[in-house]
Amino acid sequence: MTELDVAQLQRRLAEFAAARNWQRYHTPKNLVAALSVEASELVEIFQWLTPEESARVMSDAKKASRVTDEVADVLAYLLQLCEVLDIDALAALSAKIDRNEERFPVGQGPGAGD
Amino acid sequence: MTELDVAQLQRRLAEFAAARNWQRYHTPKNLVAALSVEASELVEIFQWLTPEESARVMSDAKKASRVTDEVADVLAYLLQLCEVLDIDALAALSAKIDRNEERFPVGQGPGAGD
Amino acid sequence: MTELDVAQLQRRLAEFAAARNWQRYHTPKNLVAALSVEASELVEIFQWLTPEESARVMSDAKKASRVTDEVADVLAYLLQLCEVLDIDALAALSAKIDRNEERFPVGQGPGAGD
Amino acid sequence: MTELDVAQLQRRLAEFAAARNWQRYHTPKNLVAALSVEASELVEIFQWLTPEESARVMSDAKKASRVTDEVADVLAYLLQLCEVLDIDALAALSAKIDRNEERFPVGQGPGAGD
Repeated sequence: MTELDVAQLQRRLAEFAAARNWQRYHTPKNLVAALSVEASELVEIFQWLTPEESARVMSDAKKASRVTDEVADVLAYLLQLCEVLDIDALAALSAKIDRNEERFPVGQGPGAGD
Repeated sequence: MTELDVAQLQRRLAEFAAARNWQRYHTPKNLVAALSVEASELVEIFQWLTPEESARVMSDAKKASRVTDEVADVLAYLLQLCEVLDIDALAALSAKIDRNEERFPVGQGPGAGD
Repeated sequence: MTELDVAQLQRRLAEFAAARNWQRYHTPKNLVAALSVEASELVEIFQWLTPEESARVMSDAKKASRVTDEVADVLAYLLQLCEVLDIDALAALSAKIDRNEERFPVGQGPGAGD
Repeated sequence: MTELDVAQLQRRLAEFAAARNWQRYHTPKNLVAALSVEASELVEIFQWLTPEESARVMSDAKKASRVTDEVADVLAYLLQLCEVLDIDALAALSAKIDRNEERFPVGQGPGAGD
């Protein structure tokens, strides 16, 4: 079995868009808008839930499927953005964690990734 | 050289949060809110740009750095969400691309990932 | 004919929520999430449009109706937020314009309201 | 004392943009992006708060000021969008409340404005 990797998925997304001649829609500006719309579709699932209900969301099969689907959509647009801007998402995140380990010494309030 | 992979970054993020006792903030509801906020910080960089200017964003070193940083933030919250909900982001995306290949036969308008 | 005013619409929204016992859902945190979701539904309408197409959006009756509907939703959640936090939205905006007139002297780049 | 009204604020915003020659930035597409960014800045204030903490946000003077400021920003972009698209925001909301009163009879779950 082939292990899934990000580079391979990013390539499949690029080929998918190219085959449909959608690249002209895929300006960075449009892709970040689409990314934010998908992120909001995740928020929509949780907007009226209490924190406790939100922690149990995956025990409802229908909601679990929606959440998983929106996670895929967010990742899809993030990787398509990285494709058109030639950003290495994993290297960017690794560098960011390195910086956050310096910026937020153990023993402080939240904000990782802010 | 060790290749970066998603599972390893997700683990580093989980350890980062655990070491700082931030898990209590990391309800799914809060993480999707944080994810959408980071996605909007990407949108903010592009909001007044023309499509053409948006395509050249990486040639401005300061903007390139901001974009890369926000990409890292979006991915960080997405993986933290996947951690607390036990979602395999790459498998979710792979399954989504499979479905989209059926749903959007070659020769139609945009919407991959919708 | 009675002219519509914001205070009256805000009161109708409050009565609407009270009659349905929805106030328990209307924490400020939930209302800002709902507001951002509705704002993203506006973005979704425009995400693949060129600037020129976006300027003509109201000439398509179906899209015009969607845009108008989402504008109403954004305003609804904004006023419900103002209701629970006791914020006077119009006074806040008036004060903000005053400040922006000082902050952005005539002859500069965009950002009003930033 | 002159009472503030929406039409007057909308006119001030339009004159503000015109005086600075910012109308070229104010495509509907850009304005909805800016609106969603401001809505997310509201979310950011609340993202790590519990529901109870969120209900007390106005008792912290600094946070109260930030919230009020972001409310003004959201309203500013909403009215600028209504200006360029010739939408009457109050009439749109009034019509929406009428429809929601039919759509959500007293005694159901949340979703006003959805």
